[in-house]
Amino acid sequence: MKALVLEEKGRLSLRDFDIPGDVGPDDVRIRVHTVGICGSDVHYYTHGRIGPFVVEEPMVLGHEASGTVIEAGANVTGLKVGDRVCMEPGIPNPTSRASKLGIYNVDPAVTFWATPPVHGCLTGEVVHPAAFTYKLPDSVSFAEGAMVEPFAIGMQAAIRAGIKAGDIAVVTGAGPIGMMTALAALAGGCAKVYVADFARPKLDIIAAYDGIETVDLGERNLASAISQATDGWGADVVFECSGAAPAIIGLAGLARPGGCVVLVGMPVEPVPVDIVSLQAKELRIETVFRYANVYDRAIALIGSGKVDLKPLISDTIAFEDSIAAFDRAVEARSSDVKLQIAMPSGT
Amino acid sequence: MKALVLEEKGRLSLRDFDIPGDVGPDDVRIRVHTVGICGSDVHYYTHGRIGPFVVEEPMVLGHEASGTVIEAGANVTGLKVGDRVCMEPGIPNPTSRASKLGIYNVDPAVTFWATPPVHGCLTGEVVHPAAFTYKLPDSVSFAEGAMVEPFAIGMQAAIRAGIKAGDIAVVTGAGPIGMMTALAALAGGCAKVYVADFARPKLDIIAAYDGIETVDLGERNLASAISQATDGWGADVVFECSGAAPAIIGLAGLARPGGCVVLVGMPVEPVPVDIVSLQAKELRIETVFRYANVYDRAIALIGSGKVDLKPLISDTIAFEDSIAAFDRAVEARSSDVKLQIAMPSGT
Amino acid sequence: MKALVLEEKGRLSLRDFDIPGDVGPDDVRIRVHTVGICGSDVHYYTHGRIGPFVVEEPMVLGHEASGTVIEAGANVTGLKVGDRVCMEPGIPNPTSRASKLGIYNVDPAVTFWATPPVHGCLTGEVVHPAAFTYKLPDSVSFAEGAMVEPFAIGMQAAIRAGIKAGDIAVVTGAGPIGMMTALAALAGGCAKVYVADFARPKLDIIAAYDGIETVDLGERNLASAISQATDGWGADVVFECSGAAPAIIGLAGLARPGGCVVLVGMPVEPVPVDIVSLQAKELRIETVFRYANVYDRAIALIGSGKVDLKPLISDTIAFEDSIAAFDRAVEARSSDVKLQIAMPSGT
Amino acid sequence: MKALVLEEKGRLSLRDFDIPGDVGPDDVRIRVHTVGICGSDVHYYTHGRIGPFVVEEPMVLGHEASGTVIEAGANVTGLKVGDRVCMEPGIPNPTSRASKLGIYNVDPAVTFWATPPVHGCLTGEVVHPAAFTYKLPDSVSFAEGAMVEPFAIGMQAAIRAGIKAGDIAVVTGAGPIGMMTALAALAGGCAKVYVADFARPKLDIIAAYDGIETVDLGERNLASAISQATDGWGADVVFECSGAAPAIIGLAGLARPGGCVVLVGMPVEPVPVDIVSLQAKELRIETVFRYANVYDRAIALIGSGKVDLKPLISDTIAFEDSIAAFDRAVEARSSDVKLQIAMPSGT
Repeated sequence: MKALVLEEKGRLSLRDFDIPGDVGPDDVRIRVHTVGICGSDVHYYTHGRIGPFVVEEPMVLGHEASGTVIEAGANVTGLKVGDRVCMEPGIPNPTSRASKLGIYNVDPAVTFWATPPVHGCLTGEVVHPAAFTYKLPDSVSFAEGAMVEPFAIGMQAAIRAGIKAGDIAVVTGAGPIGMMTALAALAGGCAKVYVADFARPKLDIIAAYDGIETVDLGERNLASAISQATDGWGADVVFECSGAAPAIIGLAGLARPGGCVVLVGMPVEPVPVDIVSLQAKELRIETVFRYANVYDRAIALIGSGKVDLKPLISDTIAFEDSIAAFDRAVEARSSDVKLQIAMPSGT
Repeated sequence: MKALVLEEKGRLSLRDFDIPGDVGPDDVRIRVHTVGICGSDVHYYTHGRIGPFVVEEPMVLGHEASGTVIEAGANVTGLKVGDRVCMEPGIPNPTSRASKLGIYNVDPAVTFWATPPVHGCLTGEVVHPAAFTYKLPDSVSFAEGAMVEPFAIGMQAAIRAGIKAGDIAVVTGAGPIGMMTALAALAGGCAKVYVADFARPKLDIIAAYDGIETVDLGERNLASAISQATDGWGADVVFECSGAAPAIIGLAGLARPGGCVVLVGMPVEPVPVDIVSLQAKELRIETVFRYANVYDRAIALIGSGKVDLKPLISDTIAFEDSIAAFDRAVEARSSDVKLQIAMPSGT
Repeated sequence: MKALVLEEKGRLSLRDFDIPGDVGPDDVRIRVHTVGICGSDVHYYTHGRIGPFVVEEPMVLGHEASGTVIEAGANVTGLKVGDRVCMEPGIPNPTSRASKLGIYNVDPAVTFWATPPVHGCLTGEVVHPAAFTYKLPDSVSFAEGAMVEPFAIGMQAAIRAGIKAGDIAVVTGAGPIGMMTALAALAGGCAKVYVADFARPKLDIIAAYDGIETVDLGERNLASAISQATDGWGADVVFECSGAAPAIIGLAGLARPGGCVVLVGMPVEPVPVDIVSLQAKELRIETVFRYANVYDRAIALIGSGKVDLKPLISDTIAFEDSIAAFDRAVEARSSDVKLQIAMPSGT
Repeated sequence: MKALVLEEKGRLSLRDFDIPGDVGPDDVRIRVHTVGICGSDVHYYTHGRIGPFVVEEPMVLGHEASGTVIEAGANVTGLKVGDRVCMEPGIPNPTSRASKLGIYNVDPAVTFWATPPVHGCLTGEVVHPAAFTYKLPDSVSFAEGAMVEPFAIGMQAAIRAGIKAGDIAVVTGAGPIGMMTALAALAGGCAKVYVADFARPKLDIIAAYDGIETVDLGERNLASAISQATDGWGADVVFECSGAAPAIIGLAGLARPGGCVVLVGMPVEPVPVDIVSLQAKELRIETVFRYANVYDRAIALIGSGKVDLKPLISDTIAFEDSIAAFDRAVEARSSDVKLQIAMPSGT
């Protein structure tokens, strides 16, 4: 079966690749339809590693996927052949201590698509546990289904923030995850979300949504803008999605007394944090690692029309051109939010 | 100054009535613009009492109000003459044990407009603490400002539910508070809210909102409808807004395992509760008493356009016709959600 | 292998009984050492059913057990032969929707020892998933290990209450579960726990613990006692452990504004609840169904000496006398809290 | 009236000093009995400032106090002349936005004893709002009453951690606040608290409490010790009480997946934080700023005997020797936890 294989750092090939995959009693086999390209896929391509995860063998990329069930294991009751689905790419040990607590995303035993040495889903078919495969309602397209994975990170951020109806939020950094977080925060109850970045094209994309206000950091000081917008009180929740040190040092200045900061962006190195300023407002700081128990929620919000992710799909590229698609992703054009690959079954 | 006075059970008059009101250093004086009629106002009119609160002296009615600041006390900094405002009608002792905890709504010392022996606001001017007077943004009309009070109850319900983005909710009872709760739940993060009632005209009004589905109890069994809509799992949150015993006995059947029930409706007498069924799903049950710390959130949601309460204002009646307005409210027409009275200053 | 078998309602026998039990790769085999007698065991004996669960075939009783690992499956890493352990008697589907959320106790698929048609542990050996088998530290005896199950219910109640350090709690009902709840509440942060019952011998047993105050309901009005003890404010948390209608109707009168009521006791039928009184203080009501994720916490508290359950073990009876032990349990002597059966391996 | 006056950085005098203080209707006048010396008092003495707060005029020191009510304002109902009390030293604006939310500690308008330009309580009498004055039960001595203030910080840390019964905690830093936090965490539900420091004398003092284990950082690696004690899982809660950069960079290594870090210690400058490591376990990070709504809880725990602070009172010095007491505090002897000053009324 053809797959997009990262042979080694900097070298992709589209070639036959055999991923063994028997359908166990609790599994389904899925014909893959659409796969989004994530920054981490690109990072493995350009750097060959992310932190402790090093590409040492050829690895199939891709973890943002939708498709169609083509085979179901003997015990599977909630899914059947023909169901349109999307898949949660991380598989925990279901009886680990973390999983029993409901926080299976932080189970040390998780295996995750396209994280070495685990293969991803940029191939024709995948076998996956039914418990981590979610049916798409008719109102959600395959393209949207493949957006659930990145949106799930925004959802996790919104849920950990503990948003209350009518909160005012700030998002620092308008990359794909910042945008997803802003939309999840809005859908999750915020009255208004201020999104800040230096890149005007990105701000223009997200500004098209009702309830979003943008702050062009080349033109305005963010702390002043938020102070002015909130009568000097500050934002209820600040989502840090840039991973940039200058944003992180200034977080306390954006939040209201007793507010919340959610650290979504991942700075490569330890960064200076102004702890006393965080304490002076007694802020709560939440961190986010992937997601747990949000896929069904994300699908419900997309399916009901409360969240529209389609404007964030910048282009759809055929599987046979997927190497070119990755090279375009490496360019990181500021008008590209999400590039998706249409698998042969999806054409 | 003219006021709408409940002289005694069943007898209203529109007459001069002097409510002493010096503007203290932390107070503002407000010219009243719009006042909504609440079920409790009507209940005092028709029954002369609500529980332990008995009308023993003539009392000015009304507690859902907006207006304009016409005088500000010496210490007031956040408001100035000319500001358009709405008012929180309950005034706690700010240093009581409950107030220090942030739950000033349950301070036993609270005084509340139009709750005997405290006069309400159906009169030309009122004096109010600035701390419980909230500025309306330009995007919020006086009519909407007078809707903040009833919407605040829905907000309190939504917030106590601890809604997470993408929750599915049920509202039992489509009276004004049920509708407000449904809209607050949607704005507060629900993907979809199912509203159930026997009264088709009410369901038709609320069904006009995106994200609301209605269940006509004359036609469908609610538990079946919710089970079907959620693949047998149940709703994340059930808001009980009817106060009706048949609804209350069946609450556990609507909720998912580990879900939440919010008791908003107030049954006059103790009612049978199926505790074992609530336990078998380990449900959390929240109760609601008025609201605390939600006015600014409610205004933010109305002001940002996320919540549109205008379709719930069924009619606006001039102050001089306010007795007729109350008599219409007594009729409880199923197409009337909220009747508002335009004060002379508001014309 | 010998087992205590409930042949049918009212008839026990101690006889050979074969429970098939292969040790799967994730299981352990345990030689049972001590088994406590629970009210539900007794209820099946005397009534042949609990709600929808009916004894239709001979069933081995018992679900409060400790023992020693004598065989471990191939994948088991956290336990080894010789480990002293206690066992969580409910086994969920680990990838169900509820289990993924961390609330595996409310997974509809749970199977639970000695709940028809599932056999219990009053036999020589049992096979159990390692994930629900917990190692006992040296400081915890087998007898204490067999107390973890009932104590876990009190722990679940304490945790769901969200106790904050220094809370004042009330427990209505001084049965075994009321006592366990009182001790869990104390260990969990309460400054003082008031335990109320009519049975003086039970109160005397629990009164021996520091931090417990008792209220003999034959002598004092509970609401008055709590009001007096809290300067009229009320208790932060009220644990209802009697299941009795008169206690339930009066719950709001015991709690402080904004406090919490935890429903632990299980009334057989729906009972009248004074909803308006609960609302007037905006109380939160939590319910409890068994427990999830508390065994390790319970063992930690017993092991560190913060919780001493030994005084609640009223007597230990040899397995060969277990029918007599059950007949004594049926008597429900007010000085008996927990009766335990010493299995042959435990002598 | 005699007072201990910080004339300027480095210069104390014990002299007559007039603090104007009329007893308003909601105030009480208190004869001061015992005052503890806090690190911040010492810091003003040695440095003349803490962050933005600069001693520019002579200022009376002291904010940890107990005493006796000698006059009560007209509206005061909860206190009467002769009551033994302790006082919360921060006074918010009770109707500010923060105060209405119940988080009056982060009200920007708070005035706080012995924080320039506000005078402290090292003098014969003080006038204080009754709402921030707490009655001591007979079982709590004046000396313990003056310990409530520092213990309140530990309580705030324990409460913000959201401790669940049976948690395992770590405290980094065994200064007075670290010790208070450890005791609050234990009283608040922890099964065991590990306290780490380099100073053996401090560790020996806190090791005398049941439930505390100490880790001498000169001898053992803390992360290894915690990993070993928790079978590699990590601590549920880590209280950072040292303010030291090496402790802060290693916090994630001490906590379990999904655990909590509470930042209590206040590093003078921004310090490097390893955000990715915190994210990889999806830790929640809480910060602490003084306390709100914990005095009554703290007193309840001391009064019921669950918390014994007396061993932490290292010495009691007469008011006339208070300059010497401060000079001893400057030495920071490792065997001194808390020094207290007995006021003339207290002898």
